[in-house]
Amino acid sequence: MTSEFSQAASGAYCTATYRLYDDKADFHKKATGIAVGLTVGSWTDLPEARKAEMERHLGRVVSVDVHEPAGAASGERFADITIAYPDVNFSRDIPALLVTVFGKLSMDGRIKLTDLSFSGDFLSAFPGPRFGLSGVRELLGVPERPLLMSIFKSVIGHDLPALKEQFYQQALGGVDLIKDDEILFENPLTPIERRVEACMQAAADAQKETGQKLLYAANLTGPTFDLVNQARRAIGAGANALLFNVLAYGFDALSELSRHPDIRVPIMAHPALAGAFYPSAYHGISAQVLLGKLMRLAGADLVLFPSPYGSVVMPREENLAIKEALLDTTGAAEGTGFGRLKTSFPVPSAGIHPGLVPLILKDFGTDVVVNAGGGVHGHPMGAAAGGRAFRQAMDGCLSGASLREYAAAGRPELQAAIDAWGIRE
Amino acid sequence: MTSEFSQAASGAYCTATYRLYDDKADFHKKATGIAVGLTVGSWTDLPEARKAEMERHLGRVVSVDVHEPAGAASGERFADITIAYPDVNFSRDIPALLVTVFGKLSMDGRIKLTDLSFSGDFLSAFPGPRFGLSGVRELLGVPERPLLMSIFKSVIGHDLPALKEQFYQQALGGVDLIKDDEILFENPLTPIERRVEACMQAAADAQKETGQKLLYAANLTGPTFDLVNQARRAIGAGANALLFNVLAYGFDALSELSRHPDIRVPIMAHPALAGAFYPSAYHGISAQVLLGKLMRLAGADLVLFPSPYGSVVMPREENLAIKEALLDTTGAAEGTGFGRLKTSFPVPSAGIHPGLVPLILKDFGTDVVVNAGGGVHGHPMGAAAGGRAFRQAMDGCLSGASLREYAAAGRPELQAAIDAWGIRE
Repeated sequence: MTSEFSQAASGAYCTATYRLYDDKADFHKKATGIAVGLTVGSWTDLPEARKAEMERHLGRVVSVDVHEPAGAASGERFADITIAYPDVNFSRDIPALLVTVFGKLSMDGRIKLTDLSFSGDFLSAFPGPRFGLSGVRELLGVPERPLLMSIFKSVIGHDLPALKEQFYQQALGGVDLIKDDEILFENPLTPIERRVEACMQAAADAQKETGQKLLYAANLTGPTFDLVNQARRAIGAGANALLFNVLAYGFDALSELSRHPDIRVPIMAHPALAGAFYPSAYHGISAQVLLGKLMRLAGADLVLFPSPYGSVVMPREENLAIKEALLDTTGAAEGTGFGRLKTSFPVPSAGIHPGLVPLILKDFGTDVVVNAGGGVHGHPMGAAAGGRAFRQAMDGCLSGASLREYAAAGRPELQAAIDAWGIRE
Repeated sequence: MTSEFSQAASGAYCTATYRLYDDKADFHKKATGIAVGLTVGSWTDLPEARKAEMERHLGRVVSVDVHEPAGAASGERFADITIAYPDVNFSRDIPALLVTVFGKLSMDGRIKLTDLSFSGDFLSAFPGPRFGLSGVRELLGVPERPLLMSIFKSVIGHDLPALKEQFYQQALGGVDLIKDDEILFENPLTPIERRVEACMQAAADAQKETGQKLLYAANLTGPTFDLVNQARRAIGAGANALLFNVLAYGFDALSELSRHPDIRVPIMAHPALAGAFYPSAYHGISAQVLLGKLMRLAGADLVLFPSPYGSVVMPREENLAIKEALLDTTGAAEGTGFGRLKTSFPVPSAGIHPGLVPLILKDFGTDVVVNAGGGVHGHPMGAAAGGRAFRQAMDGCLSGASLREYAAAGRPELQAAIDAWGIRE
């Protein structure tokens, strides 16, 4: 590990960390090549007078940690390299940062962007989540317990009455949030304004039964330059939250939507297409950066990602790194660092059933949204019972009871869920 | 290979092809799961009457080609699976298509999106490149020969006079296009309007010497929702082309920019961040789809991608698949299929020197932009001589001469380039 940086650096820098695999590269030379090549272009051949002017634009090698393979295992020699980029070189937006630190470099061999950190100056251009975790809790009037979300089961080809009924049944079980399916786009059967009206009516009907508030995240889709208008239409029709396929539009679209004065509802980031980036060890962008730091920086109030428990899986340590990025409060009190931004609600998703609730709360604590699709709709006693089973599972966990005993004590919905899907602890 | 599809299908479908690696999966069952799961959600449990209504929304398995490993080689069992998605399910934009066919699915194991095809109806919503290959040739008045592009060497930290001088020197050598560095963002030294004015002035000065027209692609950057205004500012200042980091903003932004009535200049797509998608065999999106089909569909007039020759490499067959996608004219005469869209200029880039020109023309023919950075600026006799060496190399190749003999016949610039970098044929 080298540390030329701490001596040489002045001014503000964003840093990027890469894992670079190469059987024989001189990683220190490679690191210097990145630091120079992606900033001033060339250095050693500059006249001395020019160097003085250019120094503030020059990238710096912060560290190079070389991992040599233990045995003769070829193909597993790598280095973790951290480079500091002077933020005078790029504008205060995520496309500029990403193109600087991983534009050309992404195509240069087996290299993955594993971490990012932001200078105070860069960060100061980002208001972050408008509501964040605490704001979403406030809207719902639920200060402490984990939240429960459910997803429509089938939506394509269904009409408004069918969607409304599906919404109502889900809501009855006591869920806090319901989201559109991310593959529901503008269509003649359920256009967004009519859909929002129908679903918000169903939410009001359910609230009469449950006494509980509910956020409905309507899917914000269509042409990029019309997204603000589309959001206005949805909100005008009563939408109290939005779902957004961030990676299909780029982080900057989210960043601008989340700070737009007319869009004063929480935005839920969907991870659609994320699997094109994070799973490879050798290429792409880590889940922590993609679904953690950048989503929060861009202002997502809630962030969905594949859980390590269910049908679409992500390793547990990557999940916890996302959680860490979404909930990190370092520097919050001083108003410095990433903690300056409100935290974002983590929403581990896919394949979740009530018997997984103990595990989810163990990994995530109570600041988590338990997100169920089949676990609600596939409940043997129906969707409303599905919601109740989840709420019972949460209550049981929070009271410190064993889920099995808590179910046996007169909670048939939880009992049926356990009978159907079991318990993992 | 199955072909239930040809019998069952009616209506219009876009298809997606995936390569899916799995040691033991039933790939046919998996294919059906994708076709149903990403469209109607569930099928077998629908009542018969409902099936009739839902059939037009149901995805179809087109083919499943299973590749069993020859020996006991684990980890290399895969299938190429093609699924047809009814285009009634999604709106006529690239985010909707990508989220449908690879949103959730991208996160589901070792799966790569290897190909896409578009229904006539879906395609009809896309005007494609406004200029395309033929339009760019027309603007430049160069109907047949390969074009030559050069890139600024160093730009960050340089002021307007320095940029203008660098531009002039490059232009003198007879290049057809000059592009901004993709990491040059709005900055106090060279803001886009001033930069465009200075560079277009240098272009005019050079034209007096060379008699040759030139396109200058200014880097379009900044907030997504301000891109149109930023483009208007650049064009107002005289920009006659734009460079755009498409993948940092999403394909839809390009799609809307390219069809915008106020943006009547060619758009050059930069591949920054593409390496986060295409290089892995197991994850992501193939180069052909990412830098070929989707760039052309979204309206890129010219598309840069890493060449197989130089410093940032891509396998030759992937390069040729991109070229194929950009130049495919199938159905052009009938106004059907992808050939309905104008073709896009392929721009294989990085590490190009004059001695590679024979190889480039062999692989790409004459409908190619030869794109040089160091090959122009690093020429022993200077940047103007660098441009001349390239033009000489092209002329030599087109005349059928051997490059070495052509250089020896009184062309010192080409000779110096060959002496410096050699020839690969």
